[in-house]
This record gives sequence, C-alpha cells and structure tokens, in this order.
Amino acid sequence: MVVTDGTHFSKQASQFDLHAYLAARQEKVEAALDRSLPIIYPEQIYEAMRYSLLAGGKRLRPILCLATCELAGGTIEMAMPTACALEMIHTMSLIHDDLPAMDDDDYRRGKLTNHKIFGEAVAILAGDGLLAYAFEHIAVETQAVPADRLMKVIARLGRAVGAAGLVGGQVVDLHCEGVCDVKMETLNFIHAHKTAALLEASVVSGAILAGASDTDIQKLTRYSQAIGLAFQIVDDVLDITSTQEELGKSVGKDLRAQKATYPSFWGIDESKKQAQQLVEQAKSEVSGYGDRALPLMAIADFITARTH
Amino acid sequence: MVVTDGTHFSKQASQFDLHAYLAARQEKVEAALDRSLPIIYPEQIYEAMRYSLLAGGKRLRPILCLATCELAGGTIEMAMPTACALEMIHTMSLIHDDLPAMDDDDYRRGKLTNHKIFGEAVAILAGDGLLAYAFEHIAVETQAVPADRLMKVIARLGRAVGAAGLVGGQVVDLHCEGVCDVKMETLNFIHAHKTAALLEASVVSGAILAGASDTDIQKLTRYSQAIGLAFQIVDDVLDITSTQEELGKSVGKDLRAQKATYPSFWGIDESKKQAQQLVEQAKSEVSGYGDRALPLMAIADFITARTH
Repeated sequence: MVVTDGTHFSKQASQFDLHAYLAARQEKVEAALDRSLPIIYPEQIYEAMRYSLLAGGKRLRPILCLATCELAGGTIEMAMPTACALEMIHTMSLIHDDLPAMDDDDYRRGKLTNHKIFGEAVAILAGDGLLAYAFEHIAVETQAVPADRLMKVIARLGRAVGAAGLVGGQVVDLHCEGVCDVKMETLNFIHAHKTAALLEASVVSGAILAGASDTDIQKLTRYSQAIGLAFQIVDDVLDITSTQEELGKSVGKDLRAQKATYPSFWGIDESKKQAQQLVEQAKSEVSGYGDRALPLMAIADFITARTH
Repeated sequence: MVVTDGTHFSKQASQFDLHAYLAARQEKVEAALDRSLPIIYPEQIYEAMRYSLLAGGKRLRPILCLATCELAGGTIEMAMPTACALEMIHTMSLIHDDLPAMDDDDYRRGKLTNHKIFGEAVAILAGDGLLAYAFEHIAVETQAVPADRLMKVIARLGRAVGAAGLVGGQVVDLHCEGVCDVKMETLNFIHAHKTAALLEASVVSGAILAGASDTDIQKLTRYSQAIGLAFQIVDDVLDITSTQEELGKSVGKDLRAQKATYPSFWGIDESKKQAQQLVEQAKSEVSGYGDRALPLMAIADFITARTH
C-alpha cells in the first residue's frame, strides 16, 4: 500500500500504514536535508557536516514536527525548514557526544563517527556549524509563517539544546558515569533533558508554526514528554537486548560503563511495561483529534515496538 | 571627564572621550551579561559558561552593536539582548578554539582557559550551551523590536558563526598551520571569516534592530569589514611585539607555529601602515553621519592605537 500526502488522514486507525507514512516522510526530509547544505569552499567542513547529517537515522524529530504542523492545520512546506533544523541540532549533539572527551564512540548509525573520519577539530567545528546553521536555516528559509511564530520556535529550540536542555542533560550524564548510586530522579533529569527536550521541541514547534492554541500546545507537550521518556527507556532496553548489527552502534556499552539505566532500576520486563504505559498515556493526550492524530498515535506505538 | 548616555553625540570629534565612553558601555554590557545567565542546576555547566563569558575582554562586539543601533535611531535597550548574544557567540568560539584538539591554549584573557578549569567535555558543552543560548536570548528577551527585524538578526548571526563564517575560517586556519606557502588570499579568507564576520554581524545587527535603510546597512557593512581586517592585522602585530602580561594570552605563538600572518607577508611596519589605511577607509564610510558616528570613528582609531 502506498500512502500519498493527505490521504492517510481519512483512514481508520487500524488501516493507517505507519511504515508507508514514515517511509514517505523520511524521503521528503532526506531530500530537504540534502538541498539544505550544498558543498562550497572550504569543502571539508561541509563534507563533515553532511557526513553526519545525511547518515540515515529515523528522522523522527523532523517527522514529528511536520506531523504536528499538519495536525494543527498547517502545511508540510511551512514546517520543513524547522524540521531540517531539528535534525541539524540532533546531529550536532550526536557528533559532540561521540567525541573522545565525551562518550568516545567509534560507531554511530552503523558508520564511523565524525571524528574518526575528519579528526576531532573538524568534528567539533562541524557540530558548531550545524548548530548555528539550524537557526539561520529557519530564519532564512521559512515561508508563509508570521515572524512572531518563528521567534517562538527559535526560543524553544535554543532552550531545548542549551544548558536547560540537551547540554544540561549531557553534563549530568557525564558526572554519573561510573557512579554506582545514581538516584532515579537524576536519571529522569538526564533523559528529560538529553532526549525528551528536543522531542518536545520537535512536536511543539510544528504546532506553533501552524498557529495552534495554547490548549493544543499543552496537550502536545504532554504527548511529547511521555513518548520522550518511553523512547529513552526502550533505548536502554535495546542497549542490553540488541545486537550491534541491529542497532548500528556499539551495544552493551551502558553495562560496561556501569551507567545507570532504567533496566538497572526496574529490570527489563518492568522497563518494557513502564514504556508501554507511557505510550498509552501519550496516545490518550491526542485521541481527541480523531483521524488527524493517526500519525502521532502510530508513532507512539512504534516507539515501544521498534527493535533498533 | 564622565560621559553620560546621549550627551556624547553633541561633542566635537576632538572632545569625544572614547575611554570614558567605552568604560561606561562596558559596565552596562557586563551588568547585562551577568544578569543573562543565573546559576541553576546543574551548576557546573552554568559556572563554566559564566567563567568564560564574564572573564573580561573589551566587549567590542556588544559595544559596536549598541553604537550602530543608536546611530540608526534605536535605543540601547532594543539592542542589549543581541549585544549579549554576540558576546556569547564570541566566547563560545574562544572556548572551542582553545581546546587541545584545536589551538591547545592554556591561557586566555590572562586566565586559564575553560578546559584547563572544567575539563574538555564540559568546555565543549559550555560552548554549545552559549551558542544555543545566544539565539534563545535574542528571541526571548528583546523588547520593542518587530519580529521580522529579529529574524534578520538571527539569520545574520547564524551565518556569521557557521561554516560561512567563524567555523569556516577556523577550518581553513587549522589546515594552514605549519604550511609554509600560504597565499595572501587564503590568509584574507581566514580572517574575513574568523574575525571580520562576527564584527560585521555586530555592526549590522544593531542597525537592523533600529530599522536602518539598506544604504545605511551597506555603509556600515563596509565600515565593519575594514575595521575587522585592521583588527586582525593589529592582532598579528601584537602577537610579535607584545609581552604576555600586556596581552593576557600566550604570545609569539604564531611564529612558533609557523603560522601565516600579515607581518610574515609585509613585515611589521608595512602591516601597521595597512591597518592605518583600513581605519581611515572605515572612518570615511561613516563620516557622513556627523556627531552620531563619533563612537564608531573613535573605535576605528582605537583599533590601531591599542597595545593589547
């Protein structure tokens, strides 16, 4: 079954083909990302930025942004520059997290990490370049959206990646490595900031671009927080249960590093159960939107069902 | 002599007290920077960001932004969040440039560099946090400026720091280290991107915030490009002629690293002469604004006169 834009909203939940939906959206996002960053002089920095930006991945953040923009009555075109910016920010955080001074990872998405190919200096700069470009891209490329909405989106994205978001989560995470008595509230802080903050920004920014009401934004915020935490719990479980081939990155790393994870508190079965509850909670937040929420409902289910 | 806001514009060029002007503006900028970034949990990342952001420095970029906003009919208040953002971006570039993987510097502004105090991981994250916060700060804190002007400012700043600006300049600079036959055009590229791009964004963003005309913005752009290059030439000269105490950072480093510099092409005397010509050119661009341009005229002169 091939799903074309616009038609999927009229289908029943049971008929909604998430696989086809995600594949179609992923293709659009890949094309937009590819166009967003042509290679000019000095070529190496653009090659380094593109190497990680176009290294595949689920494109979950851009797809969420496009989906909530449509849900709130906007178009894919209105949200695409922001969707691309979200992926640039996410990629920047991966490049910097993988550096020797941080998590020191050699593989990411089944490929050598950025610094293994381009060296540490260029990898640091590629991250900086992607972060700066994300904001420029939104400001320059967004069409048919009032500037005051764009300012709200920029504020949200800045917050999601800075010390009140990704960066703050990563700092606490680094401090906890090898520490045996990490508390549950610390683990929650780490993931609320490292993972959930940018997912929340992805979901909410699409709605802001479309001019959604405060009530809608609050519902979508709760949806995103629930799927954000569920996503991290499943990630922790997959680190234990997956093979490197399935996951495309080093596995069992959390265990070896004695990292606090949800399975280390709850065990694997209870972790899966908690993730499932969060997904149900997320779906109940958006169930009132009917067919318009089918993509968000299916994406929530997909989080617990995924194996990589 | 004490210069208070507003009064200095009525003075003759010969009477304009740049020292007092800079001191008064610096004090305002320091206070705004201090307020911009309170320390909350996780404290260490905010401490690391503040350590470098509040480590002194001339605050030339914020002061230029405030000056052109006033020149174009705006107020200090309109420009202050952008002025602070410019210093956050500048600070981020210094923190990352000083990293072991980059220039590997131990001292900056007379103090130990960020990674020498907080470690490499936190230093990388502090830079990321400052860069993200710069955009958030403009979007959240700017008052009484239409959102479409703010979008233009965000686009300019993003460009000035990304691969088309600072990051691109630093990549080329890294490649030229230890290379003996660096061409003059490559050296110009490095400095147009590493130094001049952010100075240009500083000058132009103030004018955009005030709603300046395209003609004014073009004049100010040429002013900023001239002082940007002059600034770098003087920096290169000072690296040779200053003592570490005067400069507050390691000196003679360019020579030891066999870095291409303007004095290595022209010698010290010719470099000083070229810088002086650029300063005259910069001043001629803004001479038509009369007394309103006194701060910009004096700042241009200050660049060649400075000893640190």
